Amino acid sequence: MIDVLIEKIKERNNPTVAGLDPKLDYVPEEMKAAAFREHGETFAGAAAAILQFNKTLIDALCDIVPAVKPQSAYYEMYGIEGIRCLHETIAYAKKNGMYVILDAKRGDIGATSEAYAKAYLGKTELGGVTEEAFGADCLTVNPYLGTDGIKPFTDQCAANQKGIFVLVKTSNKSSGELQDLKSEGKYIYEHMAELVKTWGSDLIGVNGYSSVGAVVGATYPEQAEALRSQMPHTYFLVPGYGAQGGKAEDVAKSFNKDGLGAIVNASRSIMCAYQKQGGTLGDAARAEAIRMRDDILSAL
Amino acid sequence: MIDVLIEKIKERNNPTVAGLDPKLDYVPEEMKAAAFREHGETFAGAAAAILQFNKTLIDALCDIVPAVKPQSAYYEMYGIEGIRCLHETIAYAKKNGMYVILDAKRGDIGATSEAYAKAYLGKTELGGVTEEAFGADCLTVNPYLGTDGIKPFTDQCAANQKGIFVLVKTSNKSSGELQDLKSEGKYIYEHMAELVKTWGSDLIGVNGYSSVGAVVGATYPEQAEALRSQMPHTYFLVPGYGAQGGKAEDVAKSFNKDGLGAIVNASRSIMCAYQKQGGTLGDAARAEAIRMRDDILSAL
Repeated sequence: MIDVLIEKIKERNNPTVAGLDPKLDYVPEEMKAAAFREHGETFAGAAAAILQFNKTLIDALCDIVPAVKPQSAYYEMYGIEGIRCLHETIAYAKKNGMYVILDAKRGDIGATSEAYAKAYLGKTELGGVTEEAFGADCLTVNPYLGTDGIKPFTDQCAANQKGIFVLVKTSNKSSGELQDLKSEGKYIYEHMAELVKTWGSDLIGVNGYSSVGAVVGATYPEQAEALRSQMPHTYFLVPGYGAQGGKAEDVAKSFNKDGLGAIVNASRSIMCAYQKQGGTLGDAARAEAIRMRDDILSAL
Repeated sequence: MIDVLIEKIKERNNPTVAGLDPKLDYVPEEMKAAAFREHGETFAGAAAAILQFNKTLIDALCDIVPAVKPQSAYYEMYGIEGIRCLHETIAYAKKNGMYVILDAKRGDIGATSEAYAKAYLGKTELGGVTEEAFGADCLTVNPYLGTDGIKPFTDQCAANQKGIFVLVKTSNKSSGELQDLKSEGKYIYEHMAELVKTWGSDLIGVNGYSSVGAVVGATYPEQAEALRSQMPHTYFLVPGYGAQGGKAEDVAKSFNKDGLGAIVNASRSIMCAYQKQGGTLGDAARAEAIRMRDDILSAL
């Protein structure tokens, strides 16, 4: 349910999300060395280092930043131990009152999307009982397969008060190769926007926004502006601020006049603030999160 | 490298792949009960049941079927234990001489795709050493983000003799919502086909096929026929035969005149053959795999 996220944004007066894309290079040397001493230069060692890194960031950010966005790839690359770390990161963030948007960009045919939807937003049947595999609040989803690949996710959103963000216009350089093709007078990302509106039309909450959101990159402010007016009830997850080049005035175009409608992600600039600005990992991340919040609020 | 797969197809004279999408309902009752007795009705119990199920199928099929295609969603839904089962399934299939196509439909911006590519087709750095996280031979990939989201995968293909299959025209009912839109006189799936050709042009092996393949559903035989002539050097992974409705004469359109060019997947019809035809899990799966092989070969 998008209202859970909106409440956390309002409480903290902060429409941003901290991306947890923890490359091992981002982990402070002493933290990494301690984990490798204990577990060896193994997947378990890397996962222990990254979990400590994430917990330090969550501790430093949880009262001022409403949400975290772990990027699944950076956990999957450490195999089973990496997945364990992802699972514990999600649990730790939730325990500390943060909303968890798992960035995994899943999507498949209906039956398979149902398995993904259960894995991340629902519960899995185990004989006579059911249990949460990952328990995220929200998941990013890829729409290449169309409605029947999306419906299992929206079903879980409806049943369990969860949310999804569907890729519409992504922040990367090549996004236009497919997304900017024009068909029947509209760009592909506009066609996707129409589908996203349809998928979310039954899931609009008390704040006027749907639990089916859209990913709209900060690096394409003109497209974001057009999409903003095309989909007034859709929340935007906005990647591309900071390290990827998006500025506060760019991301401002993704917001509505109510000051809501978008949540802006930054990953590297927060995780690596201590490498640039000095100070401890937690202090530097917190200072950068505050700077980012104020930068964005000043542009709204 | 697609040549590794082609050799296995030629050795067995069988252009099919057995999908391992193991719903718990597919596991024989006594196998499931034994696993739950040992581990409880837990993720560990479900994963143990599924691993036993997969090993039985691999044992029964490995000398006649060249490849397996585990569908990642059905492992992710059992959390960490499910991922452990996926890891062991991949290792067991490889040990038994099968080619492993992991169906995970990953895809993201470049830096993140690089992490996925390392996870499934490459190696992960751990301090001073590198290690394989999953070690699949091949991965399915989603092209919604364009070239920079694909390049990390093709880099791993080139470096490690691996392969990818990129979604072009998927087998599900709603696939046309995006994929059949027309732009500049061509369908979106045709635009994707052109990109796939470009991505694969430097990776063509001794049999004349690229390590960058395409997913083309058996349920759209006319589109498959057009795509076949549009991309003569591209191997097709063909889902949709059997339970989804695709027939031998439909999948035949995805092959070239050399009898190569496509590998046809069946999942449920093989995994659940024992429920329909009786016999043991392994014997029924083997009989169905032979029936499917002969059905397809007779249509070529």
